[in-house]
Amino acid sequence: MKSFAGIYTPVVTPFTPDNLLDERGLTTNVERYMQSPLTGLVVLGSNGEAPQLDDSEADRAIAVVRAAMPGDRPLLAGTGRESTVATIAATKRAARLGADAVLVRTPSFYKAQMTTDAFVRHFTEVADQSPVPVLLYNVTIYTGVNLLPDAVAILSQHPNIVGMKETNSDMVQLGEHLARTKAGFIVLAGAASTYYSALALGAHGAILAVAGVAPDLVVAIYQLALKGRYVEARQLQRRLAPLAKSVGAQWGVPGLKAALDLIGLAGGVPRPPLQAVSAAASDVLRGQLTDLALLPVTA
Amino acid sequence: MKSFAGIYTPVVTPFTPDNLLDERGLTTNVERYMQSPLTGLVVLGSNGEAPQLDDSEADRAIAVVRAAMPGDRPLLAGTGRESTVATIAATKRAARLGADAVLVRTPSFYKAQMTTDAFVRHFTEVADQSPVPVLLYNVTIYTGVNLLPDAVAILSQHPNIVGMKETNSDMVQLGEHLARTKAGFIVLAGAASTYYSALALGAHGAILAVAGVAPDLVVAIYQLALKGRYVEARQLQRRLAPLAKSVGAQWGVPGLKAALDLIGLAGGVPRPPLQAVSAAASDVLRGQLTDLALLPVTA
Amino acid sequence: MKSFAGIYTPVVTPFTPDNLLDERGLTTNVERYMQSPLTGLVVLGSNGEAPQLDDSEADRAIAVVRAAMPGDRPLLAGTGRESTVATIAATKRAARLGADAVLVRTPSFYKAQMTTDAFVRHFTEVADQSPVPVLLYNVTIYTGVNLLPDAVAILSQHPNIVGMKETNSDMVQLGEHLARTKAGFIVLAGAASTYYSALALGAHGAILAVAGVAPDLVVAIYQLALKGRYVEARQLQRRLAPLAKSVGAQWGVPGLKAALDLIGLAGGVPRPPLQAVSAAASDVLRGQLTDLALLPVTA
Amino acid sequence: MKSFAGIYTPVVTPFTPDNLLDERGLTTNVERYMQSPLTGLVVLGSNGEAPQLDDSEADRAIAVVRAAMPGDRPLLAGTGRESTVATIAATKRAARLGADAVLVRTPSFYKAQMTTDAFVRHFTEVADQSPVPVLLYNVTIYTGVNLLPDAVAILSQHPNIVGMKETNSDMVQLGEHLARTKAGFIVLAGAASTYYSALALGAHGAILAVAGVAPDLVVAIYQLALKGRYVEARQLQRRLAPLAKSVGAQWGVPGLKAALDLIGLAGGVPRPPLQAVSAAASDVLRGQLTDLALLPVTA
Repeated sequence: MKSFAGIYTPVVTPFTPDNLLDERGLTTNVERYMQSPLTGLVVLGSNGEAPQLDDSEADRAIAVVRAAMPGDRPLLAGTGRESTVATIAATKRAARLGADAVLVRTPSFYKAQMTTDAFVRHFTEVADQSPVPVLLYNVTIYTGVNLLPDAVAILSQHPNIVGMKETNSDMVQLGEHLARTKAGFIVLAGAASTYYSALALGAHGAILAVAGVAPDLVVAIYQLALKGRYVEARQLQRRLAPLAKSVGAQWGVPGLKAALDLIGLAGGVPRPPLQAVSAAASDVLRGQLTDLALLPVTA
Repeated sequence: MKSFAGIYTPVVTPFTPDNLLDERGLTTNVERYMQSPLTGLVVLGSNGEAPQLDDSEADRAIAVVRAAMPGDRPLLAGTGRESTVATIAATKRAARLGADAVLVRTPSFYKAQMTTDAFVRHFTEVADQSPVPVLLYNVTIYTGVNLLPDAVAILSQHPNIVGMKETNSDMVQLGEHLARTKAGFIVLAGAASTYYSALALGAHGAILAVAGVAPDLVVAIYQLALKGRYVEARQLQRRLAPLAKSVGAQWGVPGLKAALDLIGLAGGVPRPPLQAVSAAASDVLRGQLTDLALLPVTA
Repeated sequence: MKSFAGIYTPVVTPFTPDNLLDERGLTTNVERYMQSPLTGLVVLGSNGEAPQLDDSEADRAIAVVRAAMPGDRPLLAGTGRESTVATIAATKRAARLGADAVLVRTPSFYKAQMTTDAFVRHFTEVADQSPVPVLLYNVTIYTGVNLLPDAVAILSQHPNIVGMKETNSDMVQLGEHLARTKAGFIVLAGAASTYYSALALGAHGAILAVAGVAPDLVVAIYQLALKGRYVEARQLQRRLAPLAKSVGAQWGVPGLKAALDLIGLAGGVPRPPLQAVSAAASDVLRGQLTDLALLPVTA
Repeated sequence: MKSFAGIYTPVVTPFTPDNLLDERGLTTNVERYMQSPLTGLVVLGSNGEAPQLDDSEADRAIAVVRAAMPGDRPLLAGTGRESTVATIAATKRAARLGADAVLVRTPSFYKAQMTTDAFVRHFTEVADQSPVPVLLYNVTIYTGVNLLPDAVAILSQHPNIVGMKETNSDMVQLGEHLARTKAGFIVLAGAASTYYSALALGAHGAILAVAGVAPDLVVAIYQLALKGRYVEARQLQRRLAPLAKSVGAQWGVPGLKAALDLIGLAGGVPRPPLQAVSAAASDVLRGQLTDLALLPVTA
């Protein structure tokens, strides 16, 4: 079975001025990423505004991204929904549309009921029925629930669950995932602020928004860590940190879209209730992109 | 304009054994509630498993509930979605299907971006386009975000925003809502644990899961408070507290559905990943229902 | 045995310009309070900067306050320390110096170990050895630990534990204290923001910083609640709220001391690391005191 | 000026059966540590039950520890108190008694007032008056407050503030401390669960409770990291993790004292309200010590 180790970025979902899916912008972005050293892409991640798309838009986004990617570059599709049945349906559609694997966030609305037992049942049923490999997706900043190492350790035994994305920056939890899952289970870091730390602990790659803005730098850190050049890797992490914070914890999707606009990709405005970043934020982003030499020459 | 003061229960969404909408069970429940002193009903609330229904199921649930209610009993429909555009679409459908007002929970996925400013824009746009009055719905235990008094005070000025449901048990915040909104704005309590306290502070009613199990008792507390008989009201609150906790904070929707089964209404199993309560929990519920003389005689 | 129901204020500890105990200021404050309708006083509470005093200063403060109070006005002294042995020693000294009862905050440094079992052992041992009645003191905003209703219910059975001060604004927890403690056990509210709500739930009085600035208003709310005039009581609560917030949650001890200075009592600067409030905060306080007609005529 | 980089353990404070300072046990422990590769010791840390000692016991503990240490092994003494004046007094006494530096925890009782500005004033005044170098001590699990990188960056400029102990396991914050403090400022890790991660980020050493039970293993991880042998270091971290959790986050001081008893050092019972660990916990500890070959041969 194919391994999903490596560095990915979640593609944003650009919209046209009348709030429809901007397929052309999406295609352009993917084509640009295909010229970068990124391992592959995630469509319909949190940064893809997945919770704000309806099912037909979501399906279309997968199809558009897949069409612009060579068959050997892995495409992961986000298919988490609140109910198990809807998650399975979305998973089957994504597989049909060409996703190589699905990245399934935890359901989260009924927080008190989202126990390890409930998560194990949910993901087991999804994995049983998924035509493609499943990666678990834990993203507490958005969901308010936590997929604990106890659950991950159990689920890693399932033959169709091949890895996870852990977006929490808690290195204790990441360390437990790594220590308690079976050999070959892939743990991808999702928090840019602890990206280097996760690699130093043994993570097998990452899915990072900032990798969509600075793919070369993000991949360079990964390559240095693979070679055991940790001191250099953490120096690059420090260089990356300000921009990573801007397009992540601080300004989220609106920050990421603004940064993409500045580097000549298709960002555009996020879908309301998300709002575009302020002019002041945009200036900060421009400064950070300048520091990293990421602005187009003509800008 | 009609006032929405009073006592409501959110109707659960019963499912058939093959996980489809149990329209017959839903109708039976509504007919029973129509014989109770409840002011009206909420369909597609959190306790109605709204996040687990697809749009066609949601529409059908509204139609079924409306058909079983006399025209003069108010029906509120939950129509909150993550995007503003989807919320407006759901709101228009609900109005067409006979909802007297919509109860719109805050969007919540992108927590850091859900500022007072974003909420004011979102709800203003929804209210501008809604054919029926809008009630705001703040439910931090499920959403992880908080609709602050600053936002509520501003939004209460909108002619089509007539009230709110506040599910937080924080009496400071509830008091600020009451003090800072315009005259006639309805504040409904959503936390059974502080139901009496909310009435003592001046809340205009409540929307409570436990009101679907013990409507007479819940309405009695309201009537006592209206008459200034606070000491009696708080004694009844103490009687209500154990059951209210069981079908609320402790076991949530699964607890509520189990209690409904025990009193002869249609509860059934919740939709996965929600799981039915344990036998031990069911025994506790039976004891609490017995204490309140709510079990059918033949049980 | 004497009941400790009623309304108290914690006296601040004024300091001289060279950071010594200002005994004269302290005496003046107490004499003024003795002309108010307050039931009694608390010396060495959180608002008395107890954690910032050494043992000899603490002893002296008790003696000074006691000397300025008639024997029939109850004086409670704060004697909580981190270790059980030090708490007992401080309790015995306070009793010897004339305290009618001690108010013993939870130890809190080793948070994970501060279980209900540890609290029950601690307070039982203190109560066993205290020459005067003991009141429990739960103040999570300062301690970071919570004395749960389970612990309070058990401890209320001890013959020398006669009541508690609950500073949390959580009405669910306050309601549980009231419902689960033995008859005659006194529950005093400690959060001004929910003072009316606590009385409406059945609290037997309060210990409030704002009562040291606006004793007549605070006592009036209590008297109205005792007479069942809840609507009037909650109207006065709304009047009190802005000032209560300023001298409580918002600016704490520095805010309280500034307000006392403004009304002609001895406040002065707090002990570092506490800092005096800003001039802007002082202006807000002056406005709030003006609204309540609490400023001296000549000011 | 001497650097304080390296590996330290906080010595526990053993008590006699009648709850007095066990000077002989303390001396024995220190003598044993002097035969280990530990850089130095901390007396009166959180694990030394400092908040439970009175000033004369604290002074005596410093003197006893110093007497058992060669002059060239660094001794740090915990001297944090709630007030600035008391902290300075304790600092001067500690210096007189032979401490090479003081480790000053943040004041924390008045949490809302413990701003960066207040911390900067507090530590600056302490450092101005301290006869020995000062290390800042941030320990949110016990204090409930956080000394932010903003404060640390400013304070690192003070000539008499030479480093800090950061007990939070948040690698983002630790990374900011390292990136924003002046060259030569020492950042010591205080959380065993992220000890390796802190070293991988560039921390200059650690102060760990588990280093008092397994000094060779803890020092070995440090040495490996210094040599760039990260993969081996993180393998040892995994070996250390279970014991580190037991004597840290899980059972705290009581767990640490029980482990010390098991390996033949003087642990004894903690001072109430702390309680000795259960027999079951003790069994777990014995198993973990066996796994690390730390039990005495005769046990």
